[in-house]
Amino acid sequence: MDTYLSTETEIPWRRAVLSVDQFSRSDIAELFMLADTLAAMPQKPLAGRTLANLFYEASTRTSSSFFAAMTRLGGTVIPINEVHYSSVSKGETLEDTVRTLECYTDAIVLRHYDNDAAERAVRVCEVPIINAGNGTGEHPTQALLDLYTIAKERRTIDGLTVTMMGDLKHGRTVHSLTKLLRMYDARLRFVSPPELRMPAEYLRDGDEQYDDLDAVIEDSDVLYVTRVQRERMQGGDKAPAFDFDYALTRDDMDRARDDMVLMHPLPRVGEIPTELDSDPRSAYFRQMKYGLYVRMGILAAVLGSI
Amino acid sequence: MDTYLSTETEIPWRRAVLSVDQFSRSDIAELFMLADTLAAMPQKPLAGRTLANLFYEASTRTSSSFFAAMTRLGGTVIPINEVHYSSVSKGETLEDTVRTLECYTDAIVLRHYDNDAAERAVRVCEVPIINAGNGTGEHPTQALLDLYTIAKERRTIDGLTVTMMGDLKHGRTVHSLTKLLRMYDARLRFVSPPELRMPAEYLRDGDEQYDDLDAVIEDSDVLYVTRVQRERMQGGDKAPAFDFDYALTRDDMDRARDDMVLMHPLPRVGEIPTELDSDPRSAYFRQMKYGLYVRMGILAAVLGSI
Amino acid sequence: MDTYLSTETEIPWRRAVLSVDQFSRSDIAELFMLADTLAAMPQKPLAGRTLANLFYEASTRTSSSFFAAMTRLGGTVIPINEVHYSSVSKGETLEDTVRTLECYTDAIVLRHYDNDAAERAVRVCEVPIINAGNGTGEHPTQALLDLYTIAKERRTIDGLTVTMMGDLKHGRTVHSLTKLLRMYDARLRFVSPPELRMPAEYLRDGDEQYDDLDAVIEDSDVLYVTRVQRERMQGGDKAPAFDFDYALTRDDMDRARDDMVLMHPLPRVGEIPTELDSDPRSAYFRQMKYGLYVRMGILAAVLGSI
Repeated sequence: MDTYLSTETEIPWRRAVLSVDQFSRSDIAELFMLADTLAAMPQKPLAGRTLANLFYEASTRTSSSFFAAMTRLGGTVIPINEVHYSSVSKGETLEDTVRTLECYTDAIVLRHYDNDAAERAVRVCEVPIINAGNGTGEHPTQALLDLYTIAKERRTIDGLTVTMMGDLKHGRTVHSLTKLLRMYDARLRFVSPPELRMPAEYLRDGDEQYDDLDAVIEDSDVLYVTRVQRERMQGGDKAPAFDFDYALTRDDMDRARDDMVLMHPLPRVGEIPTELDSDPRSAYFRQMKYGLYVRMGILAAVLGSI
Repeated sequence: MDTYLSTETEIPWRRAVLSVDQFSRSDIAELFMLADTLAAMPQKPLAGRTLANLFYEASTRTSSSFFAAMTRLGGTVIPINEVHYSSVSKGETLEDTVRTLECYTDAIVLRHYDNDAAERAVRVCEVPIINAGNGTGEHPTQALLDLYTIAKERRTIDGLTVTMMGDLKHGRTVHSLTKLLRMYDARLRFVSPPELRMPAEYLRDGDEQYDDLDAVIEDSDVLYVTRVQRERMQGGDKAPAFDFDYALTRDDMDRARDDMVLMHPLPRVGEIPTELDSDPRSAYFRQMKYGLYVRMGILAAVLGSI
Repeated sequence: MDTYLSTETEIPWRRAVLSVDQFSRSDIAELFMLADTLAAMPQKPLAGRTLANLFYEASTRTSSSFFAAMTRLGGTVIPINEVHYSSVSKGETLEDTVRTLECYTDAIVLRHYDNDAAERAVRVCEVPIINAGNGTGEHPTQALLDLYTIAKERRTIDGLTVTMMGDLKHGRTVHSLTKLLRMYDARLRFVSPPELRMPAEYLRDGDEQYDDLDAVIEDSDVLYVTRVQRERMQGGDKAPAFDFDYALTRDDMDRARDDMVLMHPLPRVGEIPTELDSDPRSAYFRQMKYGLYVRMGILAAVLGSI
């Protein structure tokens, strides 16, 4: 644990959502109940409130999700996707940009390529910051929506066997989800090529590591597949092609349990072929919908707390 | 007719607006009445509804028009103009992007550089898709607004002589409008250089083709001018300069009927000099306004049908 | 004064905000009272109205400020930041783009790289145009918010000593603010390197020019610092480094009056070190907030006048 992580746990999540480390089991239960409520609610509790969607790295999926979450609650979004064109090119720091935006808005969703960006933003500004991805660091709302998906699809988290497969070394998604699952009585299994193993800091006694899915597909309650993060690997696009060796097959699904939940944070690039989309166990598009509700919960909680 | 066109006619236009081929005369009458009604209506029938404006090719005009149409009806728009920055560069397919967006939105306006994009989108998603231009294919809402403009300016379509001038080979606008006019008792005349003639598939017995405007300006009820689509021609910017030879003049207008309607889908690059803008017969900016109403009608029809 | 400036003063500011030259003292008093009122008002006087944010040059700060101002008043904004991708590349003129947008919107905020852009837009369109920066010309709403900041921080403008420091040659901000302050009984002092002096056309008898801040820091009521506009200087990024010589220090602040107001239009690139941010006299982030209120006032005035 570096200073960054130890510091951020001291900030309450309703003040700024920086890391999954800020959340206890009871925080999560509270957030998920709020998400359930908002998903079914016709009122507009955030009418008149404004959110800045400040994306230094573009992400249609995440920015659209927050955009839709805010507007479904009656609020307004200022989309700032083109940061590279603007003041930044005149040399403005992240801190000054954030302090400017807090004059116009009630909260800021921030995606940035620097790992310390979200915490730097929190230090200088008074409106809530929601970390939507800081470099190779965290993407806490993704991990929370993943957990919410499991909870909604299986009605429980305790007692489940969760298998994560793919690039476990670079995927911030699986790192954060692993942290969250540690708070529950879940059995974790990791499937990856030896070169892309889950880093030691996330491992615990009792975790099982595998080179392929064969040994574990049959009794997994959840199978969480991720793509190879080529853009974060040394060598970039020229990095060796591990991914397609880990493409899921119809045969794998035939061996899996009838109530298994198949998840993927998307985008996918071949790990799950489209022919599996119609399988009722394929939950990755429902996962997007659950993400909308979790982000509605986060926005409502964070904006209600000012 | 290729498979694409024959398939799409089987999809009702209230489910997805893909092609002018989906519209009968009575569909059009219904849509135009709806547009008339909405243009004058203070209510907000789409309050609480969300539209994704998914533009793989940028188009200020079309995206702004849908944006304004949706917000005038009380709805919200998620603008996604920067597709090339985002998940797509991580290798995401159009199908996955569309399935993600349908989790957040009630309808999707799609402009894409591939001719089969709109139909691919419809196959995988349940919310209505509105085709806002698919490569060299169709741009059905443009053709519908062109027709609506004629109907509003002349109170009828039957019995009119409609002259189209310019690049009739590459212009998807004139192709689609031609298809629509075939449903009415309109006389069509085509003016273009021999190299840019209307393709044979759009021609019918009785159509007249001309090299210049002289012979037809005097008894045209509608003159529809288009620019040379240089970006779609072989040779691109180096393609021969046909366009300015077809620039309309004050002299042409002097010979034209007092109640002629001069139209252009815009942008123009010299085909109609600005000195003609103040001529009351110049309808191309009113055409933009009519376009707003037609798109309001389409959104209301499509979103009301879920 | 060139033709451009003399022409625009004939246009009432409620029809189009082009230049500070359009504003009298009583216009300003009226606008500032309106800003005060709107800042405290819960109603949404612009509900149902639509603004186009047409930015040919990107500016997160200015576009976000207008976006937030419009939405706080209940209106909707169509953000058009990507002008370079769209119709413009098909050769469309500013005039045609503006005439198209007026079909969809109730007002247009325009930032453009050409000095005559705002006035060209006004000539062809009927909805109000708000100039948000035209090349090296004006940025009137910035100057008005600067003046409003002084008025709010000091309760008066008459009688104050206002010192401007930095690049006084290229900064359109200090030029326009200087013009506004001429309408009040304010004493002006200019601090810059000899190469970056305030142009003669903005100088009056009684103005004092200095090479450094030492002689004037002690009795300044307002210190307005600007950055070197490298992007507007001959030689661009290779232009000599004047700026850091003019960085303000803690020592300067120790010598300044207790009620001095320290302003900067932002972005800054070192002229004011962040260690001074916590000084209560540092008003540059409050200046952003005041800017929101002034722009709310301008939008309400301009849109109310149709």
